[in-house]
Amino acid sequence: MGCIVEEDDGDEVIMEPPSNFSMVDEGIYRSSCPRPANFSFLETLNLRSIIYLCPEPYPEENMEFLRTHNITLFQFGIEGKREPSAATLKNAIWGALKILIDVRNHPVLIHCKRGKHRTGSLVGCLRKLQNWCLSSVFEEYQHFAGIKSRPTDMIFIETFDVVCLRQCLHSLIYQYHGYGSKKRRLLYREDNVQKPRLASV
Amino acid sequence: MGCIVEEDDGDEVIMEPPSNFSMVDEGIYRSSCPRPANFSFLETLNLRSIIYLCPEPYPEENMEFLRTHNITLFQFGIEGKREPSAATLKNAIWGALKILIDVRNHPVLIHCKRGKHRTGSLVGCLRKLQNWCLSSVFEEYQHFAGIKSRPTDMIFIETFDVVCLRQCLHSLIYQYHGYGSKKRRLLYREDNVQKPRLASV
Repeated sequence: MGCIVEEDDGDEVIMEPPSNFSMVDEGIYRSSCPRPANFSFLETLNLRSIIYLCPEPYPEENMEFLRTHNITLFQFGIEGKREPSAATLKNAIWGALKILIDVRNHPVLIHCKRGKHRTGSLVGCLRKLQNWCLSSVFEEYQHFAGIKSRPTDMIFIETFDVVCLRQCLHSLIYQYHGYGSKKRRLLYREDNVQKPRLASV
Repeated sequence: MGCIVEEDDGDEVIMEPPSNFSMVDEGIYRSSCPRPANFSFLETLNLRSIIYLCPEPYPEENMEFLRTHNITLFQFGIEGKREPSAATLKNAIWGALKILIDVRNHPVLIHCKRGKHRTGSLVGCLRKLQNWCLSSVFEEYQHFAGIKSRPTDMIFIETFDVVCLRQCLHSLIYQYHGYGSKKRRLLYREDNVQKPRLASV
């Protein structure tokens, strides 16, 4: 993504992103289930992994795409039509979040079938972890779910407890830096903080 | 963005992104006009510049935020209520696109008033430059404009000619690499192409 590519023969390749595609954050994308027509677009994302939130087996042609491009599949099956039990949903989202925030898995694409409910719930929990206020989290959820927005998803997001996950993270980072460290900030990219500002235009 | 920050005193800062906020691509964001309540969130984006698409003077408190954070303002005034002439709109979008794709200005936030029509038109033209198929460009436009989607914006995006801009880019990159170069690919981040894949989880 972000590339403007001219093929050697001068032909332009028209890209077809999957429906409901969007960039969530650096190295994190979301969409509906990609079809073969979307594969040339997906190649531009240079993905390392995919988080797949449906219980159904991954489509064979998508599996082939993953094999060819050395992309790891993480599957957390959440039932789409019937409402899953709160415990099942919580466990799946918890597991998916831990994969999602591990930068070793980036760039990562999250998808379910239509990229509305299951994907929206996972992204909603990520936003809570990022300390977004709830009204902004809901606005984003509703952008993608549209008229199909489900109050049960929004209650799930609202009540999902990120404190425990955050404590796991802090525990990890303190182990990494040493418990005596005064540096209490966890950043994905330290180099983002003080980049030199070039004169522009 | 992408930071999970714990303040030294243990209090969590709740972030309020501007309405209609989203990440467009690496280093490119879009939103409605930020209010002071959004400033602590904006700080996490570490912006270098803002592309402002309204003809009205930039709000004084936002200007102060830009001054404090050394953020450059690029203003391309497009009338919001009355329909601007095609030539005015084209000139403004053309100028804004040139600023937008210049990575020296990144991270950059594009905004107008509500982040629907003017911002959506600029992002739509960027997507054409990125070779997105038109149906995907329209789907994204409609995500943000919702029931306020304007057929005139979509016609503008459809008929906007990116070939000329692309030729300017190619001319620039060939000058940079030298016309004799066989390397005909223009990439934002070469380091994205062949990054080492670490074992994950």
